[in-house]
Amino acid sequence: MSTTEKNYNPVTNQIIDELKEIVGEKYIIYGDEEKLEAFSHDEVAEVAYSHMPEVVIRPSTAKEIAAIMKLANRENIPVTPRGAGSGLSGGAVPIYGGIVLSVDRMNKIIEIDRDNMMITVEPGVVTNEINEYIKDDGLFYAGYPMSLETCYIGGNVAENAGGGKAIKYGVTGRYVTGMEVVTPTGEIVQFGGKLVKDVTGYNLIQLMVGSEGTLGIFTKIILKLIPLPKSSVDLLCLFKTAEDAIAAVPKIMTTGGIIPTAIEFMDKTSVQAACEYLNESIPYQKAGAMLLITVDGASVEQVEQEYEAIGQLCLDGGAIEVYVADNFTTSERIWKVRRNIAEAFKVVSPHQSLEDIVVPIAAIPEMVLGLQELSERYNCSIPCYGHAGDGNLHATPVMNPEWSLEKWRKTLPDILLNMYKLTAKLGGAISGEHGIGHKRKKELSMFVSQDYLNMIRAIKFALDPQNVLNPGKIFDA
Amino acid sequence: MSTTEKNYNPVTNQIIDELKEIVGEKYIIYGDEEKLEAFSHDEVAEVAYSHMPEVVIRPSTAKEIAAIMKLANRENIPVTPRGAGSGLSGGAVPIYGGIVLSVDRMNKIIEIDRDNMMITVEPGVVTNEINEYIKDDGLFYAGYPMSLETCYIGGNVAENAGGGKAIKYGVTGRYVTGMEVVTPTGEIVQFGGKLVKDVTGYNLIQLMVGSEGTLGIFTKIILKLIPLPKSSVDLLCLFKTAEDAIAAVPKIMTTGGIIPTAIEFMDKTSVQAACEYLNESIPYQKAGAMLLITVDGASVEQVEQEYEAIGQLCLDGGAIEVYVADNFTTSERIWKVRRNIAEAFKVVSPHQSLEDIVVPIAAIPEMVLGLQELSERYNCSIPCYGHAGDGNLHATPVMNPEWSLEKWRKTLPDILLNMYKLTAKLGGAISGEHGIGHKRKKELSMFVSQDYLNMIRAIKFALDPQNVLNPGKIFDA
Repeated sequence: MSTTEKNYNPVTNQIIDELKEIVGEKYIIYGDEEKLEAFSHDEVAEVAYSHMPEVVIRPSTAKEIAAIMKLANRENIPVTPRGAGSGLSGGAVPIYGGIVLSVDRMNKIIEIDRDNMMITVEPGVVTNEINEYIKDDGLFYAGYPMSLETCYIGGNVAENAGGGKAIKYGVTGRYVTGMEVVTPTGEIVQFGGKLVKDVTGYNLIQLMVGSEGTLGIFTKIILKLIPLPKSSVDLLCLFKTAEDAIAAVPKIMTTGGIIPTAIEFMDKTSVQAACEYLNESIPYQKAGAMLLITVDGASVEQVEQEYEAIGQLCLDGGAIEVYVADNFTTSERIWKVRRNIAEAFKVVSPHQSLEDIVVPIAAIPEMVLGLQELSERYNCSIPCYGHAGDGNLHATPVMNPEWSLEKWRKTLPDILLNMYKLTAKLGGAISGEHGIGHKRKKELSMFVSQDYLNMIRAIKFALDPQNVLNPGKIFDA
Repeated sequence: MSTTEKNYNPVTNQIIDELKEIVGEKYIIYGDEEKLEAFSHDEVAEVAYSHMPEVVIRPSTAKEIAAIMKLANRENIPVTPRGAGSGLSGGAVPIYGGIVLSVDRMNKIIEIDRDNMMITVEPGVVTNEINEYIKDDGLFYAGYPMSLETCYIGGNVAENAGGGKAIKYGVTGRYVTGMEVVTPTGEIVQFGGKLVKDVTGYNLIQLMVGSEGTLGIFTKIILKLIPLPKSSVDLLCLFKTAEDAIAAVPKIMTTGGIIPTAIEFMDKTSVQAACEYLNESIPYQKAGAMLLITVDGASVEQVEQEYEAIGQLCLDGGAIEVYVADNFTTSERIWKVRRNIAEAFKVVSPHQSLEDIVVPIAAIPEMVLGLQELSERYNCSIPCYGHAGDGNLHATPVMNPEWSLEKWRKTLPDILLNMYKLTAKLGGAISGEHGIGHKRKKELSMFVSQDYLNMIRAIKFALDPQNVLNPGKIFDA
């Protein structure tokens, strides 16, 4: 699907033999189309964004990865790193073929350092496992991507995953204090350590975070932990209309003096899809939209005070009902609905485009209004949900079932163009947490200048002069 | 003092004329040794780290700065950006002469956006003014460098300043969501915006933050604000010995489940120097060392609960007395002592070296013990104070008054070498917040690998191919 701007070499039998020597024959997938197919896509629904690898390799050490990168540079073969494949912008798709480097075997929790409140993990650890592992120590890792039950921490770092708790706790990058990285040229380099402050040289850690696998392959990640909140309550606030719900968001953020942990927005279509997918019975018929708000803190009293204040703000803002979920089971039921919306829409229709726009919080009402206008203008449903407290909305155009596939493919780019134009006009960005990958690279220039693109290209080529590490992502060479 | 690795051209009369055309004659300092001298150093005490500029230029717009950078590239003249000159690693010193570019005239608060809780400022705004400006709106900027009454926000961003409240609120970089930057080659580029999440391209904002003026000159900075804490209390905890005080720090951080806003450590010598400098009467005679602990939050009750728990932890850890400062005047008295320690030591002796080592919090006791051993071994006082809750210690070897200057200059490098060796052994870094500048660039390689240095050099030259922006800082070309 992509035109090759650089001619990479094919993976020959001789190279396969060399790769076998590096990782062992058992850990190479080659010549088996069915098995390789699983590595040709991530969670982007449209098949147009997939591409077959020539070989998949599953190393278990930094040294093996370094050897693979040396070989890739010598032989001019692209290497695409891959975590759990749960990405949403095609970042792990080998668009020029070559080698897919899966970190699934690097799934060890290397060390939990209670005295420093730090955990050291390999990139293939499933995100959710971190909190399972440390909760008995009263410690907490604040990352909460919606795919946390399957995604890998390495992928979270590569994409700078945001998720449900970023309002209060920030995104993934805030917690990364150190890493071991294999560079595009095959050197093993250490950055940072168990330090909460460190101004040694340039901040290469935060340059690596969110670089979508184009600047290095993480082989160890040190994460800062915080005290496990002693109390947490969720509010499910039902509003008559999406406008009412969304209008409450900037108010909650600015007038209460309280920073909630989460403010998730879900319109009726989104909740309904997830409830039907999960066979769950949240009372979505009553409401045009909902806010799922979490408050957590160091004491029950503090949390009570805060959620009561926020609940009142919602009622003042026209909420028709506010349910309080103050136990794990009920909270988990609601959050499961929220986490499964994207999955549910994929069942509704494979022809949809999960977007990830982000706008300043005060611009959310205008953005939601604009999305409704777009939906009407094109006669195409654009259900909307997302991390409203961050201004991050997963608007998702879904093909009108009456349309031909051809019409959908012709119309979607127009819808997206208008959506992005409005986002840019409101001071927003094309992606809050899913990344550019190759799904959004053409549209990136609507949001950044040519000078900016020149800068990121210059950095890429300074660190990867042969452009062998995940080429064709974020920008074309 | 530095050997020129690249031959820069001198600033000729013709270039002066061109600079006058760019910013206006009034805003150039040239040919006046006395006036130029003020721009030859920052707050590093040793004169060996100073160097005279050929010309100082005071632009007021990004466009003027872009024109200066174009000229610098064309004529091969180094440009050293300068904020308030309050730096502590020589970052603003023009070690190859050329142009010092002062941002002192760019001191406007451009916009306060209450709905988005963001403020847009020019780089020459004095840090403290930000909170003065927004406090009536119930908003708060969490940066708190010790020099906040004089330093500029631009310098804070360039150095990724830490300061007194970083345990809870993080360092400067956490609050920078957007910036306008003049690149080393003279382009004006926008990064980010009023967005709390944004994964568009590489994280150039965080690459710029802490780059010590070597990768770009900030002309606008967008800062995220948070709700002003409704309550704040300081504890002054007196301990018999430095060991007792410092042993309490990791305990406070890990056993209480509470994240305090500040934990500052001051040994007796440090408090005494500052008290004498300020004519202040904190009861330092009683104690070998003190912890200054701040707790703040959204309610009086919460803060009370938290400071009582922390006070008890200190008493359990051997504190001989805990004073509670719960009003602004008393709090400010104590913090003023803390903020003025560095200034006070400069009065005690100009022959001292203010260090900025940082270690994992659990390693602080061992680090402090090591410093005491070094002090005894070399018969040289090494008073110590700093942001203990971050592991960031401003150990400051001060010349033994009985020594000759020659002996001091011969001994200090040995003391520092041993201090850095221990820091590295404990998993620490050479600088937590003051930066590398040119004061620490030789020692940087004790803490990072050659591959790391190659990477940061490659990035520098990708963005500044002629090496005209603040050359000779962090690393040699």
